[in-house]
Amino acid sequence: MIVALCGGVGGAKLVDGLFRNLPAQDLTVIVNTADDLEFCGLRVSPDLDTVTYTLAGIARKDVGWGIEGDTHNALTMLRDYGVPDWFQVGDRDLATDVLRTSLLRQGRRLSDVTALLTDRLGIAVRILPVSDDDVTTRLLVDGDWVHFQEYFVHRRHAVPVEGVRYEGAEEARPAPGVIDALRDADLIVVVNSNPVLSILPMLAVTGVREALHGARAPRVAVSPIVGSDAVTGPAGDLMRLVGCPASATGVACAFEGMVDGLVIDRRDGQQESAIRGLGPKVFCTDIVMRDVADRARLASEVLSFARSLR
Amino acid sequence: MIVALCGGVGGAKLVDGLFRNLPAQDLTVIVNTADDLEFCGLRVSPDLDTVTYTLAGIARKDVGWGIEGDTHNALTMLRDYGVPDWFQVGDRDLATDVLRTSLLRQGRRLSDVTALLTDRLGIAVRILPVSDDDVTTRLLVDGDWVHFQEYFVHRRHAVPVEGVRYEGAEEARPAPGVIDALRDADLIVVVNSNPVLSILPMLAVTGVREALHGARAPRVAVSPIVGSDAVTGPAGDLMRLVGCPASATGVACAFEGMVDGLVIDRRDGQQESAIRGLGPKVFCTDIVMRDVADRARLASEVLSFARSLR
Repeated sequence: MIVALCGGVGGAKLVDGLFRNLPAQDLTVIVNTADDLEFCGLRVSPDLDTVTYTLAGIARKDVGWGIEGDTHNALTMLRDYGVPDWFQVGDRDLATDVLRTSLLRQGRRLSDVTALLTDRLGIAVRILPVSDDDVTTRLLVDGDWVHFQEYFVHRRHAVPVEGVRYEGAEEARPAPGVIDALRDADLIVVVNSNPVLSILPMLAVTGVREALHGARAPRVAVSPIVGSDAVTGPAGDLMRLVGCPASATGVACAFEGMVDGLVIDRRDGQQESAIRGLGPKVFCTDIVMRDVADRARLASEVLSFARSLR
Repeated sequence: MIVALCGGVGGAKLVDGLFRNLPAQDLTVIVNTADDLEFCGLRVSPDLDTVTYTLAGIARKDVGWGIEGDTHNALTMLRDYGVPDWFQVGDRDLATDVLRTSLLRQGRRLSDVTALLTDRLGIAVRILPVSDDDVTTRLLVDGDWVHFQEYFVHRRHAVPVEGVRYEGAEEARPAPGVIDALRDADLIVVVNSNPVLSILPMLAVTGVREALHGARAPRVAVSPIVGSDAVTGPAGDLMRLVGCPASATGVACAFEGMVDGLVIDRRDGQQESAIRGLGPKVFCTDIVMRDVADRARLASEVLSFARSLR
C-alpha cells in the first residue's frame, strides 16, 4: 500500500501520477482539510475536491481546480443577490458542496461523505480527509487571523503574512483509517504540496506527526519549490513562518525527522549536501509537471527512489 | 393597496398583469408556501420563486417557472453522484435555494429572507409568504400521503388522488404583514391559482380565512378553470377532493363566502346563474393569458370589475 499526503492543485498532479503507476486499490491519499471553508452556508473542501476531480479526470486543465467546462451561473445569480463572489465556484462544483453539506447535516462524517462522493464518481483510490473534525489554517495579516482562502483568493496575497496557526488541530482526531494507513504503508509519499499550508496542518492533527515519524515504510517528500519560488501557489514566501528558507533545503527543514528522502529539482542540485545534512537522501530530477506524461514520469521516479531507500 | 393571493405559474402571470396596471408599491402579494420542499438539504420555495422571477422579468418564458436561459449543470453533477433528479432546478435557480437556506439557517424568518431576495432583485412589489412556519400540502395517493411535488413532478399525476390535507396549517401563524394586508386592503384579488393546491392551503393557516372573510375590501377571484380543465396544471381533477366540481362553478363553491366577485371565461358564461346562486357576482372574459398583453388586459378587467363591486 502506497500512502500519499496531499494538499491541493500541485500535489493532486503527483497523486494523479502515482495513480497512473499503481493499481488504484494500492493507493491511499490523505488530504488536507485545513483550507475548508463555509461559503453561503455550504461546506467547501477545496483540497478534497481537487484530488477527487483530478483522479476522476474532470479537473479543469488550465488551473487544476474546479471542473473542466463548468459554468458559473449560480455564482452570477449569487452576485445579483449581493453575495460577495470572491470565492469562485462553478455550477457542477457547487453541486458537490450542496451534496456534501446535506450529508454532513444528516450527521455523516466527512470521511464517510468523501468515500461516498468518490465512489459515485468511480474512483477506486481511497481518499481520506486527514480529520473529520474542523481544522483551519489561519494567517496573521494586518493584525487579523484570516482564513487562507480569504488571503489567497480575496486579498490576492499582496500583503505580508506575519504568522500561521492551525486552529482546532490539537483537538482534532485523525479520521478513521489515517493512522492505520500510515502505520501499515509500504511507502509514504509527501507530495509536492505547500508544506506550510497543506502538509504541516495535517501533521498538526493529534497523532499524525507521530504516525509519520514512527512509520516503518520509507518516506519520501517531493519539493514544491524550485529556486526560491513555489511551482504553484504561494509556498515560497510562507516558509519563513515556520523558520525555514524558501528553498528545497527549507522543505527538508520543515519536514526534518519526517522523511527519508527528498526529491528536488535538478536546478537545485547544489543544495544536495545541505539537505543531506538535515537527514534525507536526495534525488534530483525535473519536478515541474507540465502535462500528464510529466506526472507519470515524476511519480515513477519518486516510487523508484523511495524503493531504493528500503 | 391591492392584495393578491397567489400560488405558482398561472397565478404569477396575473400578478404580473396587476404589476403592469399599478404602482409597484400599491401591490402586495401573499404567496403559498405549502408546495415548499427540501431538495438535497436546500429549502426550495417554488411559488415564491415563480412570483419573484416573474416580477423580476427573468422567469422562463416557456414554462413560467425557473429562470430564462438557465443551465442545469449542478443537477447533472448531482445525477452523477446518484441523487434522484426528479426535481428540476437550474443553476441560477439553485443559487436562490442556497442563499435562502443559508439565511434561514442563520435564524432569519422566511418572510425576511423573501424581502431581502426580492429587494436585491429590484422588486418593489411586496411579496409575503403566507407563513414563516412549515405548511405542507399532502395528497393521498396509493395509500401514501405524498408531497405535491412528488405527485406532480415525480409521478406525473398519472395516478388518482384520494385525499388532500394541509399539514402544519393549524399550528402555523400568518407571516408578519399578512393579516394586516388583508384587513387594510382596498381590493383583494384571489388570482387564478389552483384552489386546492395554492389558495386553500393559505386559507388553512390560522387566521387567514377569517381575515379574508372579514375584509372590508371587495374580493374578486379569477377562475383557473375553463370548461372542466385547468388552464395550467392539475387543478381540475383535484377539485372534487374539496367537494366541488371541476368547473368555474366549483371555484365559486371552493371560495364560498370568501369572494364578492368571480371572473370566469366567457365560454363558461352559462354557469353564471349557478355561480350567482353561491353569492359572487360574475364577470365573463377571456381568462387565458397567452402573452404579456393578455396579462395586463385581464388584470385591468379584474381591477375594473372589483372596483364596480364597492
